[in-house]
Parts: sequence; structure tokens; C-alpha cells
Amino acid sequence: MGPPYCITLRAVQEAQRRIQGLVHTTPVMTCSSLDALTGRKLFFKCELLQKTGSFKIRGALNAVKSLPSDKCTAVVTHSSGNHGQALALAAQSMGIPAHVVVPTTAATCKKAAILRFGALIVDCEPTDKSRAEVAAKTLEKTGGVLIHPNQDPAVIAGQGTIGLEILEQVPGLEALVVPVGGGGMVAGIAVAVKAIKPDVKIYAAEPLNADDCYRSKKSGVLTPNLQPPITIADGVKSSIGPNTWPIIRDLVDDVFTVTEDEIKSATRLVWERMKLLIEPTAGLGLAVILSSQFQEIVREVQNVGVVLCGGNVDLGTLP
Amino acid sequence: MGPPYCITLRAVQEAQRRIQGLVHTTPVMTCSSLDALTGRKLFFKCELLQKTGSFKIRGALNAVKSLPSDKCTAVVTHSSGNHGQALALAAQSMGIPAHVVVPTTAATCKKAAILRFGALIVDCEPTDKSRAEVAAKTLEKTGGVLIHPNQDPAVIAGQGTIGLEILEQVPGLEALVVPVGGGGMVAGIAVAVKAIKPDVKIYAAEPLNADDCYRSKKSGVLTPNLQPPITIADGVKSSIGPNTWPIIRDLVDDVFTVTEDEIKSATRLVWERMKLLIEPTAGLGLAVILSSQFQEIVREVQNVGVVLCGGNVDLGTLP
Repeated sequence: MGPPYCITLRAVQEAQRRIQGLVHTTPVMTCSSLDALTGRKLFFKCELLQKTGSFKIRGALNAVKSLPSDKCTAVVTHSSGNHGQALALAAQSMGIPAHVVVPTTAATCKKAAILRFGALIVDCEPTDKSRAEVAAKTLEKTGGVLIHPNQDPAVIAGQGTIGLEILEQVPGLEALVVPVGGGGMVAGIAVAVKAIKPDVKIYAAEPLNADDCYRSKKSGVLTPNLQPPITIADGVKSSIGPNTWPIIRDLVDDVFTVTEDEIKSATRLVWERMKLLIEPTAGLGLAVILSSQFQEIVREVQNVGVVLCGGNVDLGTLP
Repeated sequence: MGPPYCITLRAVQEAQRRIQGLVHTTPVMTCSSLDALTGRKLFFKCELLQKTGSFKIRGALNAVKSLPSDKCTAVVTHSSGNHGQALALAAQSMGIPAHVVVPTTAATCKKAAILRFGALIVDCEPTDKSRAEVAAKTLEKTGGVLIHPNQDPAVIAGQGTIGLEILEQVPGLEALVVPVGGGGMVAGIAVAVKAIKPDVKIYAAEPLNADDCYRSKKSGVLTPNLQPPITIADGVKSSIGPNTWPIIRDLVDDVFTVTEDEIKSATRLVWERMKLLIEPTAGLGLAVILSSQFQEIVREVQNVGVVLCGGNVDLGTLP
């Protein structure tokens, strides 16, 4: 076991109390036809049915509610994806303004969702440099706080509440497969689950095209993606970072990578068999369970949880 | 009140006991963003999450389980849609063969689903004449029974169990909007709901392009569609019939029709806001609630149930 981590079980439990009643306890669904296909008993934790259409509201809300009251003038982020929408709603429900820095090239549906949750859009050029500059300027102007989408400890603790819930909902759970991008979700869940039921295996699911977590675990050294990854699972393009890495290194049992075709086919299976409109990132878990590596390595485990992390798919670009 | 109907509340209650444990008690979901959009409190009865992806398993299973045991040699149908899949699974779970007459032109995904539920496919030409002939021949050859998809009383009683469930799940329900094709679902629900809570309004939702139920109610005379209707809501192309009409005439409070564009837009809203992959037929209810006629006529009603009847959308042809 390594050094103390950025969060503890207690932080996750406190997060749960803090966000209770403001987020959904999402249902766990089962599907006999996918059980037959995988030869396991699968338990799908439906975070796509969460407020804002993804689990991100858990962490965003915990972070905003954890801010000291004198710092609560505004929150700022430059994620136009699920974290951006989540932070917008979190700030709205706390009655403070949210500023989301969005490239002028972003899809209309993303902008519409951010506006629907009451946030202000700040335009930037579609480059990392412009994004960082505009965010810095916005922070200065508003006196607000930047909430990091996956390395902020309060965000990680918030995502960990998924773990607390599924342990309650599935008493016989033996393993849990969790998509990994920046690692906030898998780290939060791992801290919570391993503290309560250390025998439950935690597996991270990652696109082969964005396999920094896999390579980090393999080498024992934090190894970010060098290039911006190209993957249909656009929710996990971020690399794991300094706060999530030690937890992933010590508490995640294994990392499995899958190809783009495997992700697409698993996503489609969930649409077809479960009628749940997940985004491709949420197909990662089932893709891993269907993969030959998983079948070879993970033999004894019957009751497997899968986090369907989100459903914010651009309907104009359905494959 | 008219003559005795083909079913009673008691038949629906018996159906519920008969199919219990073999079908899902589907969840009721809510969506704050659609509540805001409609100015009501909506309760979505998620029959798309039912076994076989539609409510049809309720009626099919009740019908198959109601057959006298000496007639249980086989069941036959010529529906390649939701009823075909449902009858296939119902027969499979009772251990008797199902024969589904399918035009050679039917979509591969429909045939695949029928085969997945263990039924035998009998090919016919894509004409009404060939379909009827092949079905008759199959009945003769197998000594089986034809289960009508919407006029069989046991089917109507089975669909009525949706009404019993939603009354339990939503104690403050004031109205329920139900898609109507052959009328098995709305008739079964109306019998059950009006017997238990006569004040709950039952509204039928119908495509303008297949408005036989609307015209029948308006004229007071059963008035089937003359031409095969052309609508994206392919689950409700059938006309209401001799067994469902008297119930609809007496117990359904009103019928609302919507255009193809209204259906598409409501379907998309459910995909986007609820992440539920409904088929367009299941978009009818929300389309009606969003329509100006409904807003004008139905003013006082706050808590409105909507049956999301199915999710068997051909993923290759998503709009």
C-alpha cells in the first residue's frame, strides 16, 4: 500500500451526504441476453440516467459544495463535455455563476446543453493555448475558482459515491469494470470499494488508442498520452494525473484495453439489447468484458458490475 | 356504459398473476427537463425495458398461458414486429414451438430477433394474401393456435397489467396517454384503470396518418383505416377492431392525433433528455402532450403518465 492518497473512504462518505437528494441514486439494470452472451451476471450502473446525462454531476456538485463560502463567487472550467454541463448545473443549484470556456468550433448541441443548465459560455479559439489563456482571464475577472475535471480531490470523492451505491445495490458484487480517462471515477470508486469490500476487483477499461493508464500500470510509472488520442470514446481522452495515479497504481487490479471496433460493437449491443442510449465511452466496460483478454484472465468472477458512465451522444453523428 | 366488454378488471388481475415473475415490472422514470418543457409532471412507464423490448410480451404470455393444455401444440402469428418477438419468447418459456410467418423482404434485424427468441420463421411473399395463406397452411400443418396481436381477449387483458402497475407506482396519477394501433393496450389499460380509479383520464395517442381511432370516436362508428397507413410509428399501423372498439368508445376519454414531424421530434427529445432508445411509436405520447390541442383541451391535469411502449428501433435506419 502506498502513501496516503488525496482522498479517503470518509471523504467519499461525506461527499455522499453532501450531494444526497441533489443527484439521482441511479438504477442498476440487468439484461439476460447480455448475460448469456458474456457468460456472467452483469449489473449495469446507469449513470447515463444521472442528472446532466453523466456521473460528472457527482464530483462537480461535491466540489462546488465543498468550496469555502468566501470563495463562492464563481466557478470556471474549460471542459465543454460532460464535466462542463455538470459544473453548470452544480453551480446553478448553488446559485453561483458558472463560466464555461468553449472553442468556437464546438458542436451546437454541447453549447445548448451548457446554456440549458444556466452557465455562461466564454468563447475561445480551438487551441489549447487560447483555451488556457481565456480560462485564466476569466478566473481573474470573476474571482472564481477552477474546478479540475478529474484531479480535484473533491471531484474524485464525488465520483466515488458510485462505488458506495453499487455495493448497496448489488450485495454479491465480485468485480466492477470502470472506464478510465483522467481517472477520477475509477480512483474514487477504488478508494471506496476497497475500503469496504477489499475482495471486490476493480478493473479499468480504456481505449487502445488512449492507453496511458494501461502503460502506466505496466511500467509502474505515470505515463501520460503524448499525443491527443483519437478515439470514439471521447469522454476518456484525458490522461490520468498526479492525484489519481497513486490510487490507480495501488488499488486498481488490472487495466484492459479495447479497439475502436470493440467499443462501437459493445455500444451498439447496449442500444439494441438494453434500449439505453449510452455514449461510446460508456460502451468501454462491456467491450472489455467481451474481449478475449478479459475472458482469459478473469475466470472465476461471476457477478460483474459495469458503469454506464454517460449518455451524451450527439444524435446528429450516430454511427 | 355499453354492453359487457370482452374483458373485465378481473381478467386483467388474473393476467397479472399469470405472468408475474415472467415479465418485468418496468420502472417509471421522470425527467425534470421534459416536465419544464411541458408544464406538467410526467411519469414515463418504461415498457421499452420490458422483455423483448416492448409491452407485447404481457399479452402474448397471458394468451399462451391461458390456452387449454390440449391446444398447446404450437402457436402461430404473422406479425414480424413486436408481437412476433413477444409470442416467440412466450412460447419458448412455455416450451411449445412458435411459428412466425415473415415476408421474405423483412429486415434482417427482425428475423434475427425472432430466431433469438427460439421461434421458427416461415417465409411468405410480401403480400397480405400470401401472408394469410401461409399462416392458414401453417396452422393446419402444426395443429396450432393463431394468437391475434390486438383483438384476442387474453392479449388485451395482458396489456391491461400496465394499468395496474402504474396505478401502484404513481399514486397521484391523474391521466395516462397511451399509443393506439389495434387498441389492445389502450383497451386493456382503460378497463383496469377506470374500474379502480374512474377519475384517471385515459387519452389515446395516434398518428394523423393512421387516425382510425380518432375518426371512430368522432363518428361513434368503428371506422378502420382504408389504406395501409404510412407512418414512422410502425407499431400502430393496425386499425382498432371489434373487441377493442366498444371499450375505446366508452372508456377512453379522448383521442389526439399528431403529425409525423411531431412524432419524430418527441422521439428525439426522449433520446436526448432521457437517454432511452424508444422506437418512434413510443414517441406518440410525448408528442401528444406537447401538441397545442392537448394544451388547449387538457388544462387541469398535472400528473400525466406516458407509456413508452417499445424500443425495437432498427439501428440501421435511425433518422
